[in-house]
Amino acid sequence: MTGLKTMLNPKVTAVVGVSTSNPFNPGNVIFRKLAFENGLPTYPVNPKGGTVEGVPVHKSITAAPDDIELAVISVPARFVPSVLTECGEKKIRSVIVVSGGFSEVGDAGASLQSEIATIANKYNITLVGPNCIGVFVPDVLDTFFLPSERVARPRKGNVAIISQSGGWLIERLEEFAARDVGISAAISIGNAAQTNVTDFVKHFGQDDRVNVILAYVEGFGEGLGRDFVEACKKIVPTKPVVVLKGGESEAGHRATQSHTSSLAGDYAISNAAFNQYGVIHATDEDEVMAYAKVFSFKPKFMLGSRVGTLSVSGGHGVIASDEASYYGLTMPPFSKEQQAAMREVMTPAYQGIASFRNPCDLTGSASDIDYEQVLEKMLEFDTIDAALLLLLPYAPGISLQIGARVANVAKRHKKTVVAYVPNLNKYEVIIRGFELNGIAVGDTIEEAVQMLNGIRKRSKYLQDIGKI
Amino acid sequence: MTGLKTMLNPKVTAVVGVSTSNPFNPGNVIFRKLAFENGLPTYPVNPKGGTVEGVPVHKSITAAPDDIELAVISVPARFVPSVLTECGEKKIRSVIVVSGGFSEVGDAGASLQSEIATIANKYNITLVGPNCIGVFVPDVLDTFFLPSERVARPRKGNVAIISQSGGWLIERLEEFAARDVGISAAISIGNAAQTNVTDFVKHFGQDDRVNVILAYVEGFGEGLGRDFVEACKKIVPTKPVVVLKGGESEAGHRATQSHTSSLAGDYAISNAAFNQYGVIHATDEDEVMAYAKVFSFKPKFMLGSRVGTLSVSGGHGVIASDEASYYGLTMPPFSKEQQAAMREVMTPAYQGIASFRNPCDLTGSASDIDYEQVLEKMLEFDTIDAALLLLLPYAPGISLQIGARVANVAKRHKKTVVAYVPNLNKYEVIIRGFELNGIAVGDTIEEAVQMLNGIRKRSKYLQDIGKI
Repeated sequence: MTGLKTMLNPKVTAVVGVSTSNPFNPGNVIFRKLAFENGLPTYPVNPKGGTVEGVPVHKSITAAPDDIELAVISVPARFVPSVLTECGEKKIRSVIVVSGGFSEVGDAGASLQSEIATIANKYNITLVGPNCIGVFVPDVLDTFFLPSERVARPRKGNVAIISQSGGWLIERLEEFAARDVGISAAISIGNAAQTNVTDFVKHFGQDDRVNVILAYVEGFGEGLGRDFVEACKKIVPTKPVVVLKGGESEAGHRATQSHTSSLAGDYAISNAAFNQYGVIHATDEDEVMAYAKVFSFKPKFMLGSRVGTLSVSGGHGVIASDEASYYGLTMPPFSKEQQAAMREVMTPAYQGIASFRNPCDLTGSASDIDYEQVLEKMLEFDTIDAALLLLLPYAPGISLQIGARVANVAKRHKKTVVAYVPNLNKYEVIIRGFELNGIAVGDTIEEAVQMLNGIRKRSKYLQDIGKI
Repeated sequence: MTGLKTMLNPKVTAVVGVSTSNPFNPGNVIFRKLAFENGLPTYPVNPKGGTVEGVPVHKSITAAPDDIELAVISVPARFVPSVLTECGEKKIRSVIVVSGGFSEVGDAGASLQSEIATIANKYNITLVGPNCIGVFVPDVLDTFFLPSERVARPRKGNVAIISQSGGWLIERLEEFAARDVGISAAISIGNAAQTNVTDFVKHFGQDDRVNVILAYVEGFGEGLGRDFVEACKKIVPTKPVVVLKGGESEAGHRATQSHTSSLAGDYAISNAAFNQYGVIHATDEDEVMAYAKVFSFKPKFMLGSRVGTLSVSGGHGVIASDEASYYGLTMPPFSKEQQAAMREVMTPAYQGIASFRNPCDLTGSASDIDYEQVLEKMLEFDTIDAALLLLLPYAPGISLQIGARVANVAKRHKKTVVAYVPNLNKYEVIIRGFELNGIAVGDTIEEAVQMLNGIRKRSKYLQDIGKI
């Protein structure tokens, strides 16, 4: 799959299927993005010739210049085989087919899909699609056939996202942008006639710029589920692979049939299988974000399930306890001595109203420095394996600097720390203070607990296989 | 509890415990809010006299004028009994005690708390607190002792929120404001020395401006759990009561001990009990928002569990199927005839690529009018009880008018309809279009499914008791 590297960083591209009359045609949208937004030399192609956006249109791939590294094909399904053959003859190594009308529409489409896979293999073309929305690499490449204003583009970062559903992928991009989580690439694999999720997992497994691989999968072809988990197993010791599997309920499974017509063959790849191979299995979209985000920070390991919790609101501690309990994490009560040690470093006036049993509630009277000093003490206790900071910044003594200050306390310790701060503009300085200093911030208490759960699951797997 | 009405709409107020030297003192924050933000005549009180913000300070409640309807007390716990007695002698009927240092700090505090309850009862004072953050009524009253910039204030609306945790309440206000869900009041009951969650449920049950009552409860005193559900049972036929119970896990329950020191007596009030009395039991904060929001729209009933789903992305349909399955909702496949009827009204060019089995996937090629016309057909089918619209507006044919247009289709039918649209600024027109026309919008697929689950639970209860 050497073509993948070129596909994600091509020097010259072509778009087959532009319209000289309709600027909203998907091919035209892709052409404008590649040529004007990504600044790549891009040849538009249409049998009728003419010009698009002032650029001359080539009548065929064959008639276009020879330096094309990536061709994006957006023509009706029945024309795709001949265009792909031309690409092969021209030794273009990377092709994305965004056209629909293949296996997702029944038997005739399925046979057309086999045909293009055969052509791609014959010519050594690396093919993504058909029935996909394309590939997005921040600052490099955007082949999505959707107007720019419709799709958020997260900043460059270290999460690679691979999705069998274009809609799901778009939704994640919106969410990643809103949460300021950077990505290294977003891949819509569509019907996966040739390259599939496993190929991309292997590719990103080798890419040092990627810290986390996130995949949305509805189904695997016969035997391909095992390939997938085997590939993950090799990568997991180096970087986490997070998977959401759509169609896990019977109803959802039935729904996948009309979508990408995934085969039922390896439907049985289950939570147990994911766990066995060290794959982090997200059960819903909230967990997807929690795990992808926390692992993008390369968090410290969590060598047991015991969490020390620090809040400024008793109710938050209660909610966190319930959530932690759901995930099998514990909050062991601190001993009298531990409680006294933490109480001692609080501002004297508030020592009497703060509570230190675990969860600890410093109350709305606490200040930044109380929070810092109690955390410093707590992280020294060998009865906990991680700290959870619940920080609704409503307490008047909490300043916008608390994120950076507390993160710097955490840096001095070996235990993993995650925080909860609501994702509101007014708290951006706090969130940024945490995150620039390596502490992931969840935007709900639940998400912060899920982050710890992800870290614990991964750490336990690595302990079990003797890697930590 | 006639004092509650006055408490939530007082004509004249007093704040006991202002500082003449420290403007950040909680009493001063409350004074400024009442006097300057709510525009209420407000008397500041401090034994030392002087002035605050240019207003003369009275040396005691006794020395203040006689027209006070609500007094907010923010003095150290040990002084609260005598101040409260003065309020009683002065015939002030409503008092909020924000001071901490009562049952939450142990036996001495608990006995002080009994004392103030006794005084309140003796003088027929309606008392909220102690250890609470106060009461917020949009456009009327804000006694929260937190600086305004720290706490969002949702617009006026029809959800009444009652919380045993101040932090939890603040967090909901942030979330309600961010989601543009209006509230009628937000009450922090604190330690509930006298008035408790049940009193407020009864009060809001009688208030026609309230469509939904939302309560966060950690525990009930001995016997009070039964009072609560009995009160709910009387109200539920008229309006939904949504409850999140903190401390449901063993760990969470332990955590409540150090928080509001709730008694374990009625800890056993469980999901089964809530269901039996028609209370909508939210299991986490996501469900809280889903249920509170959807019921604020007074949605149509859902007479069975069958959902017809309409999306522009197959992946969304798959995710929704999984979520629905979790909640016991079904998406029965449409018959060949039903599928043909929906297909027939699609734009001819896209009839071949759309899928109508349920979930229906109109694909990214669909336009507003396709969506409208297919929904119109679907809502006629007697094989479904509700419609779920999944509308990530990435498809170029979907305009910002789609919300209002589709909501108007829904208006003509008896079935309940909810939508999913991501809560992003760029889609505000779509969301507003739906919501101004009576369709609640979830900001995740999960939330939209939870909304249907809430409607179905309530409808089923009302069916079971013969009310619909």
